[in-house]
Amino acid sequence: MPTRRTTVRRAPHRGVYDREVVHAILDAGRVAHVGFVHEGQPFVIPMAYARDGDRLLLHGSGGSRMMRALAGGAPACVTVTIVDGLVLARSVFHHSMNYRSVVAVGTATKLAGKEKATALETLVDALVPGRSDEARGPDRAELASTMILAFPLEEVSAKVRSGPPVDDPEDVSLPIWAGTVPLALEYGHPEAAPDVAEGVPVPPSVSGLIRRSPAP
Amino acid sequence: MPTRRTTVRRAPHRGVYDREVVHAILDAGRVAHVGFVHEGQPFVIPMAYARDGDRLLLHGSGGSRMMRALAGGAPACVTVTIVDGLVLARSVFHHSMNYRSVVAVGTATKLAGKEKATALETLVDALVPGRSDEARGPDRAELASTMILAFPLEEVSAKVRSGPPVDDPEDVSLPIWAGTVPLALEYGHPEAAPDVAEGVPVPPSVSGLIRRSPAP
Repeated sequence: MPTRRTTVRRAPHRGVYDREVVHAILDAGRVAHVGFVHEGQPFVIPMAYARDGDRLLLHGSGGSRMMRALAGGAPACVTVTIVDGLVLARSVFHHSMNYRSVVAVGTATKLAGKEKATALETLVDALVPGRSDEARGPDRAELASTMILAFPLEEVSAKVRSGPPVDDPEDVSLPIWAGTVPLALEYGHPEAAPDVAEGVPVPPSVSGLIRRSPAP
Repeated sequence: MPTRRTTVRRAPHRGVYDREVVHAILDAGRVAHVGFVHEGQPFVIPMAYARDGDRLLLHGSGGSRMMRALAGGAPACVTVTIVDGLVLARSVFHHSMNYRSVVAVGTATKLAGKEKATALETLVDALVPGRSDEARGPDRAELASTMILAFPLEEVSAKVRSGPPVDDPEDVSLPIWAGTVPLALEYGHPEAAPDVAEGVPVPPSVSGLIRRSPAP
């Protein structure tokens, strides 16, 4: 639900509060930009993430300044943006981008025990669905050195721009091309690590990735 | 130069302070995530941007809460991230992403007059090189309703992860595939707006885009 802090103020017609739209954007994104404040200075750090129902999972080193601040209940903002294209108008002024973004504000909580181990697998599966079944699971030392945070999707809003440019009526007939150029994050060919054991094939998780479009 | 605020603390071997590396990442990125603080709460907002020498240009509506805060000298953070691929290790724990990111902290200043008009063209040309010569330039009303900020690239650092996964020595011989799956933002086919005047061809700026790789 939109609150005073998450109501889209600029271009409010682009604001979306529908849970399914928010979830679809988060599921299609790859990187979250996490904002926190340290001694009055905001910092914005890119992080991998996973959506787990009505919360986001974020992981990092337990020694990181940001992770410690977030685990301590510091106010935070998590933003995910997907660029869908360039928007070329007849006028310089109306040039824009097509995009989908989600902004969530709130405070994180630190996960522990069984929930933490499951969350680590959810994070890997968000990157590459099915991968956690193929890879060696985390041991106690690895779990101990990782911090996993859950961030609520309560105060959250989405913003979406799509479609052609919107020019001023008097510009439409100008002999200037206008339109959009789509942009999408696309997978390349998998590259095996130089030291992969002989005869190990590319696994189903990776072949599955390449078959799917990364940004539905 | 790295300062106390921009020294890369986590995985310091991935920290880069070389100006050319920072500039190359900024020139290849498409969206900046801008962090500012409002009543103690951090917000992170995606914005188009352009690098103009040793500063970044950001533009938005003069009525936006964020733009007003930034123009008023609020401490800010501008982060640009490019995702280059997924990194699949034998262990769940060592899964990662290849990426290049730049984090800059500082305060913005508002541009005016001739400098502002030039900056608007620089912003459009960062999106689509050469486009500002093809499109109708901004008029007085358009310039008045836009705010353009310059953000210094002084306190800035980059972080880069590239290459294959790094597994624990005892995991390397496991019969588990490991490697990377490249990801890159790719252009699709230009789509003309439905109301483009008859006979107007796709312009050189757009054909040039498609020929180039967006993320050098």
